Amino acid sequence: MGISDSIPVNFSLPTSSSILNTDTVIAITVFITLLCLCIVIGHLVEENRWANESITALLLGLVAGLVVLLISKGKSSQILTFSEELFFIYLLPPIIFNAGFQVKKKQFFKNFSIILMFGIFGTIISFCLISLGVGLIFDRIGVTSLAIKDYLALGAILSATDSVCTLQVLNQDDTPFLYSAVFGEGVVNDATSIVLFNSVQSLDFSNIDGLTALKLLGTFLYLFFTSTALGLAVGLLSAYVIKTLYFGRHSTDREVAMMLLLAYLSYMVAELLNLSGILTVFFCGIVMSHYTWHNVTDSSRVTTKHGFATISFIAETFIFLYVGMDALDIDKWAASKASPLTSIAVSSTLFGLVLVGRAAFVYPLANIFNCFTKKDTDKIIFKQQFIMWWAGLMRGAVTIALSYNQFSGDSSEKALMITSTMIVVLFSTVVFGSVTKPLIEAVLLRNAKPMVSDATDSPSLEDLRLLFLENGDDPSDEGGSNRTVRKKSSLRLLIANPTSTAHYFWRKFDDRFMRPVFGGRGFVPFVPGSPTGAAEETS
Amino acid sequence: MGISDSIPVNFSLPTSSSILNTDTVIAITVFITLLCLCIVIGHLVEENRWANESITALLLGLVAGLVVLLISKGKSSQILTFSEELFFIYLLPPIIFNAGFQVKKKQFFKNFSIILMFGIFGTIISFCLISLGVGLIFDRIGVTSLAIKDYLALGAILSATDSVCTLQVLNQDDTPFLYSAVFGEGVVNDATSIVLFNSVQSLDFSNIDGLTALKLLGTFLYLFFTSTALGLAVGLLSAYVIKTLYFGRHSTDREVAMMLLLAYLSYMVAELLNLSGILTVFFCGIVMSHYTWHNVTDSSRVTTKHGFATISFIAETFIFLYVGMDALDIDKWAASKASPLTSIAVSSTLFGLVLVGRAAFVYPLANIFNCFTKKDTDKIIFKQQFIMWWAGLMRGAVTIALSYNQFSGDSSEKALMITSTMIVVLFSTVVFGSVTKPLIEAVLLRNAKPMVSDATDSPSLEDLRLLFLENGDDPSDEGGSNRTVRKKSSLRLLIANPTSTAHYFWRKFDDRFMRPVFGGRGFVPFVPGSPTGAAEETS
Repeated sequence: MGISDSIPVNFSLPTSSSILNTDTVIAITVFITLLCLCIVIGHLVEENRWANESITALLLGLVAGLVVLLISKGKSSQILTFSEELFFIYLLPPIIFNAGFQVKKKQFFKNFSIILMFGIFGTIISFCLISLGVGLIFDRIGVTSLAIKDYLALGAILSATDSVCTLQVLNQDDTPFLYSAVFGEGVVNDATSIVLFNSVQSLDFSNIDGLTALKLLGTFLYLFFTSTALGLAVGLLSAYVIKTLYFGRHSTDREVAMMLLLAYLSYMVAELLNLSGILTVFFCGIVMSHYTWHNVTDSSRVTTKHGFATISFIAETFIFLYVGMDALDIDKWAASKASPLTSIAVSSTLFGLVLVGRAAFVYPLANIFNCFTKKDTDKIIFKQQFIMWWAGLMRGAVTIALSYNQFSGDSSEKALMITSTMIVVLFSTVVFGSVTKPLIEAVLLRNAKPMVSDATDSPSLEDLRLLFLENGDDPSDEGGSNRTVRKKSSLRLLIANPTSTAHYFWRKFDDRFMRPVFGGRGFVPFVPGSPTGAAEETS
Repeated sequence: MGISDSIPVNFSLPTSSSILNTDTVIAITVFITLLCLCIVIGHLVEENRWANESITALLLGLVAGLVVLLISKGKSSQILTFSEELFFIYLLPPIIFNAGFQVKKKQFFKNFSIILMFGIFGTIISFCLISLGVGLIFDRIGVTSLAIKDYLALGAILSATDSVCTLQVLNQDDTPFLYSAVFGEGVVNDATSIVLFNSVQSLDFSNIDGLTALKLLGTFLYLFFTSTALGLAVGLLSAYVIKTLYFGRHSTDREVAMMLLLAYLSYMVAELLNLSGILTVFFCGIVMSHYTWHNVTDSSRVTTKHGFATISFIAETFIFLYVGMDALDIDKWAASKASPLTSIAVSSTLFGLVLVGRAAFVYPLANIFNCFTKKDTDKIIFKQQFIMWWAGLMRGAVTIALSYNQFSGDSSEKALMITSTMIVVLFSTVVFGSVTKPLIEAVLLRNAKPMVSDATDSPSLEDLRLLFLENGDDPSDEGGSNRTVRKKSSLRLLIANPTSTAHYFWRKFDDRFMRPVFGGRGFVPFVPGSPTGAAEETS
């Protein structure tokens, strides 16, 4: 192959830059070029409903991996080796933070109960089922060397849905309920499965008793609440600091830098304290969009809104590129020593268990939820349950990262586990990623006119929402006599609908105690000499 | 010391997060906390004319290094070791790109000749003098083991001025001429000294002849022009791609991501081809602000303007923190084995040579420039020359990075060179960084009313500028009969002032050929369905 021979010639120029390592420079150049290509291709296929950016990136990564494989004459397909550190420290935090920052908070908190049910209990059910299934089936298809710890780890690894691709497949405007439920579940699910994974790794399997499960639950609850609290605390701190010091007076850039750094700090501190950084940074994002974002200058608002989204977008695309390129890792495939038949058998087993594991909690939990919901319009209809099941089947970078963490060793069956999870990830992302959008259109939206696609946004509820939320939305309209009249007449409605009641009291609390301290919409100090408007143009 | 003993206790919580390396997490947490502190302190001392962000960061870094030193019981002051890769790949490019992106282009190109003179010939003069001086003096103060290559490397290392701190000390509005001259020189100087450094490293010193110097010059010119051309090419590519595809139609984030990635790509490709990435990314920034920036949606403009500035700001602050912490690197100080007296002697020698080396080109070159300038108002007065000399005395991260590159080894005198350059950097940054602002006020601005502080912006020239530049500024006003009349009457003026003539023809060329292809002010396609205005609020 002449390509590999000709490359060094091109690079031998008069002086050799001895400062930088050429391998790193090549790797970065290739990745940035691929990222640019992804953006251009993603833009061109935007109107195509079968494609999306994740799939484009994944396929482009595969192609690039293939090219590198050919150039290196079959030696290696990798330019960068998959590093959990890169993923968990640099790529995942901005994605999850941005998700919290841009999430529609009303929808999110309205569906909070179902998100927690699915994200916590659902993931635990899925974890148990997959672990059990793997334990029962693997013996029969010839995979025998794995320990009970590996089975449990596999359960945790394959319970981690991919929230990134879900975001691209579901539409926040067309199907707000599904979007917030599935996506919210995805965030809680990421946290749950990582906590489960860590718990499995730290458990002492020599003496398991009835207390172990209880301990696991205790640990989980402790992590959930402390992580959330930390996220809220850092978010409020950012709001308070920025409101008090008002950096915008001197420089817009300081505000933006402060928000960026504090968000990242929340993640790192959570990791340092062995909490769930994902949950922390997600709630930090929510608090920042509710308070901090309203305390900064106009330029900072636009910059943070689009800047965070851009960073998150680049990180997402990078992950899929990475996964695509990593899939052709020759060493792992060679190390697994498995026949194609075994490989297919293991992968199908895993994927089958993923399907069953998800079905086993989506339908029961949705129906339990329906039992406790009085209004018909609030119930989750079967078609929605189906989409919820389907949209959560994708597996992504979290799965791969955890799999590397558990199974990197010299055993051939461990290598087989890595290649098999890789196949599951590629297959689920490409197939489900491309089919989901058209499927939703076919199932929900095509005959959506008679049926309300987003059941919880029914007119009667909408009236109620308008009545209370809009009042809360305008903090300057306080204590009007009008309001008390309206309030009394709708007290009955409130009791019938606990979510809105909670929201109503939250708004009251927020306006009375929180916003005066932490700022927020309508509580921004106006400083005339702010540099916002002054320098809108680069000269 | 109880501190170090108590830390592990705090970190031992129920489950141990086994995925991430704790050291990395601690290092990042500490650095982000320090960065936040720098921002807050920098904001609080904003009105203080003796302090600035660089010095704050440097001192905070020193303090943090001291604390770490105490906690680790004198074993190490470092949390992260200084890595040239981190500096040249991740920190320097955004700073230089942002400098190009935000630079006042008119001022920059008006002073282009003086910037090139100072940046190229000045740096070469300084390089020769420092190398020579080191070669002559070091023998006498007992430093004997260094080779001629080390002397030349020291010349290159100490010729690299610090453009970052200069930016903070000079004010673009108060002293536009000085700002653009000193800062522009700084960018060209960075490139020149890195090229000189690389040349020195790659030279074969066994057979030096008359051709060597010529070769060096040839290499330098080749690098200068190819690097600039590459930067211009990538910038124009970004403008063309974004204008043609108009990503903003679908997503603001794609535009921002594309600009960010292409800018970074220009740097990496330059490094890959062994060109000067600094020059490339600087000119890429200039082209992007002239064309690409006008082709994107309004939100993207605000986001890129402030987003790039924020990234650059964080990188700058990070560098100074890093340098501050690195200064207490116990191992290097121990390895140098030098008595305090020798250490002081070497450092003072180096710093003295820096002073002389800069004086040796600023005054002569400025006076040569004055000889070729006919107008008195365009001449560089002595006070300005003094400030130009003074403001370029700071040495920064480039010096340290190159010094590590050259002198990391096991020889004690090499370690001494590293500690001595460190002292020069710390001393020059703290002293010159804090004194420069008040000095400029005292020298130039206090009695500025009678004397025009920015000599080149004199009224008569301003009239000329207005006449030609304003015409060019408004591309919609084309071929008016008015214009030809004006043009003829001022032909005389044009001949008298070559810079403006060049500018005038450039504007004509730009409007006729460049802007229609690459976009730019007034050539932006208006697409009604753009998402710009639609979603300005996070809900």
